[in-house]
Amino acid sequence: MGLYEALKSITGPDGITTEPEERVCYAYDATGRSFLPSAVVFPQTHDQAARVLQFASKHRIPVIPRGSGSGMTGGAVPVQGGIVMVTSRMNRILEIDKDNFTARVEPGVVLEKFHKAVEKQGLFYPPDPASSSVCTIGGNIGECAGGPRAVKYGVTRDYVLGLKALLASGETIQTGVCTAKGVAGYDLTRLIVGSEGTLAFVTQITLRLLAKPELVKTMAVFFKNADQAAEAVSGIMKQAIVPRCVEYLDHACLKLVQNSLDFDIAPRAQAMLILEVDGNGEAVDRQSRQIETFCRQSGALDIIHAKDSLQAHGLWKARKALSPLLYKIRGSKLNEDIVVPISKIPAMVRAAGEIQKRYDLPLVCFGHAGDGNLHCNVMYDPGDETQFDRANRAVDDLFGAALELGGTITGEHGVGLTKKKYLPREIGSTELALMKEIKKVFDPHHILNPGKIFL
Amino acid sequence: MGLYEALKSITGPDGITTEPEERVCYAYDATGRSFLPSAVVFPQTHDQAARVLQFASKHRIPVIPRGSGSGMTGGAVPVQGGIVMVTSRMNRILEIDKDNFTARVEPGVVLEKFHKAVEKQGLFYPPDPASSSVCTIGGNIGECAGGPRAVKYGVTRDYVLGLKALLASGETIQTGVCTAKGVAGYDLTRLIVGSEGTLAFVTQITLRLLAKPELVKTMAVFFKNADQAAEAVSGIMKQAIVPRCVEYLDHACLKLVQNSLDFDIAPRAQAMLILEVDGNGEAVDRQSRQIETFCRQSGALDIIHAKDSLQAHGLWKARKALSPLLYKIRGSKLNEDIVVPISKIPAMVRAAGEIQKRYDLPLVCFGHAGDGNLHCNVMYDPGDETQFDRANRAVDDLFGAALELGGTITGEHGVGLTKKKYLPREIGSTELALMKEIKKVFDPHHILNPGKIFL
Repeated sequence: MGLYEALKSITGPDGITTEPEERVCYAYDATGRSFLPSAVVFPQTHDQAARVLQFASKHRIPVIPRGSGSGMTGGAVPVQGGIVMVTSRMNRILEIDKDNFTARVEPGVVLEKFHKAVEKQGLFYPPDPASSSVCTIGGNIGECAGGPRAVKYGVTRDYVLGLKALLASGETIQTGVCTAKGVAGYDLTRLIVGSEGTLAFVTQITLRLLAKPELVKTMAVFFKNADQAAEAVSGIMKQAIVPRCVEYLDHACLKLVQNSLDFDIAPRAQAMLILEVDGNGEAVDRQSRQIETFCRQSGALDIIHAKDSLQAHGLWKARKALSPLLYKIRGSKLNEDIVVPISKIPAMVRAAGEIQKRYDLPLVCFGHAGDGNLHCNVMYDPGDETQFDRANRAVDDLFGAALELGGTITGEHGVGLTKKKYLPREIGSTELALMKEIKKVFDPHHILNPGKIFL
Repeated sequence: MGLYEALKSITGPDGITTEPEERVCYAYDATGRSFLPSAVVFPQTHDQAARVLQFASKHRIPVIPRGSGSGMTGGAVPVQGGIVMVTSRMNRILEIDKDNFTARVEPGVVLEKFHKAVEKQGLFYPPDPASSSVCTIGGNIGECAGGPRAVKYGVTRDYVLGLKALLASGETIQTGVCTAKGVAGYDLTRLIVGSEGTLAFVTQITLRLLAKPELVKTMAVFFKNADQAAEAVSGIMKQAIVPRCVEYLDHACLKLVQNSLDFDIAPRAQAMLILEVDGNGEAVDRQSRQIETFCRQSGALDIIHAKDSLQAHGLWKARKALSPLLYKIRGSKLNEDIVVPISKIPAMVRAAGEIQKRYDLPLVCFGHAGDGNLHCNVMYDPGDETQFDRANRAVDDLFGAALELGGTITGEHGVGLTKKKYLPREIGSTELALMKEIKKVFDPHHILNPGKIFL
């Protein structure tokens, strides 16, 4: 029996495709890298996914877990071919438990749909990567997604209580708890979170929820240059006010978003911060005033308060659209999500400026400055080999600068394919050897998402 | 060269003892279980600890990491003899970085000392187990300690950014980051947190800090019975007010603490809650009023507001003294820290009441009810074999009830020695097999804290 027939017997004819024109749709992710899989399956149940893995394991065929393919480092790209296993039909919100502030979901639930569902019940799920309108919670688990609200609320890891998952062999495991606390045995849950689909195929997730904050205030603050904005971020964070978002946008970003904003950008502005505070009424007003005062003292040119949630929403929509808009500058980008200690943001922004000059390529920076997480995009023309070389050298220097400042090469995108060669600059050989051995424990035949992180 | 001479050459004569009267002091922990080690070493540096492990690894001698020995499940007890490696001389706070809200500490730092040091700088480190005046941060890492403030702020795991540690072989590893975010490679940091000293010997810890809350309000609320108090807890948590502490004390506890409180306990009270809210001024007042109103509606007999931080401190001191005070009831206890979903607390409290009747032994319950974490203490007379048997059967039933309600057998004490035999009731055989293989990756000769969790 061939691959198609075998998989069809598990998923039914609607749950599998080997047609080239369909396979090509599951060959790439947001990096643009593309490798054709042999087949694409769409399991509807844990059991179907288990049987696909049993089959693949027996025949040593790679299986690549995939949500919406919005990842930034090639995590879902089938670099060694094999079977792409898409979670889009395992997309049910199984339970929202208002009394216990938990939810159970399948991996294919689109994040924005989940946000809306919990908020309708007065609850709140903080992780909010820019791709929220398309990305899946399963993908968020794979990469340990963050987003702007991580400044105050932490990342995906902090909201995962437990998992139901499949090992490469197709065996089922259940990790963690559905309670607020739990320390029985090793923490397999958080080992799987951020493992980029290389350790297990997650089929069910128990998430922790919070109460929805009473009030949110959003403001846009303009500065005359990047340096001043970066100093303001570092200064705000030292004040011990904890905004829920502190987003930074550089000059190039301002140009890209200006037409989608419903207010004017201060004429001499070269940088913008989006600041957001939340909580109870009076505290929010007070914090918002404190931040405003601090920004003015730090040389802010102008401060625009979103007059309502609609205007705030518009501002975020513009911010979230940035990543695709970048292609207006050049046809390709290398997008790196480095993190530095908060006090080192001004130094990192200066370093990025120098790197831009050094390699004579547009280097566009924006991101979650409040936790030191900057998205640095080196733009290049894909048809120009010398630009591509320069872009790679620029990335090399960016990582060098981030590591030099005590930072990391990835805050939320993961290592995937694109950062693989840089990982040994951050992680030592003993630690990498441990990781490789852990991989073997979970997946002795290396069929789960091979060729990623360090393999 | 004998054991003593070999270790002396590493630690110097002051850093090692093999005297029986000294070894006996490092044979036990808070469970009262006792096994004599062959030697006790007190390394002062990472390098000394590394050399002890190299020696032990070569000769296949068990090494048992130990902080203050205040653990509740036998984690630091040298059940197979060997070398107890005490962290008490690696007790420096290396750095408190106010700009980046981080600290670097050695494992032997006593938690209370660390609390005071960071609070002096306007910072805040939430984990606060009842043993805070003696327990070490290294021990907290080992067990993933929690404490009352976990309701709002989470547990030790949530505050560990990175670790420097030694493998059983004596090789050094560095995990995690010193930034707010980081997802490069597998999450070795959180794998080591809660691994009870079986995976690595931690020598340096990078912790995340928060800003110290402006205001804290503490109140004691009395109820006429356990059931009503439990219903109030569940009800408060549903209100979406998030107190930072929701502690429950049952009738037996009230009797034990009454003399150490500087206010009167309501005459008919059979249960008490300690509730604490923190944050900014107005919000704290409002939340405190909301909670008071809710408690009165739930049948509270009396509500005492701590008039200042001194009185609040007195209340917490009485609460923290509870565990040792229990020995006034019977000479021995089996102390279990089960967790259930918050809405199931009333059911769990009722189940505990039934178990107490069933086995005719005092079953004293207190704990962090706000996150469903109850400390259930089965008291027995150590000289009475039948009582010991009944106590064990009571524990069996307690775990059964907690698991039945969707809970876990341990929220913060870990599995150690005492819960080993119960672990397979919560964790499946596939998951246990994974954990055992992970153990082998870190410690192929099983010298690090052998005989614990599942080994």
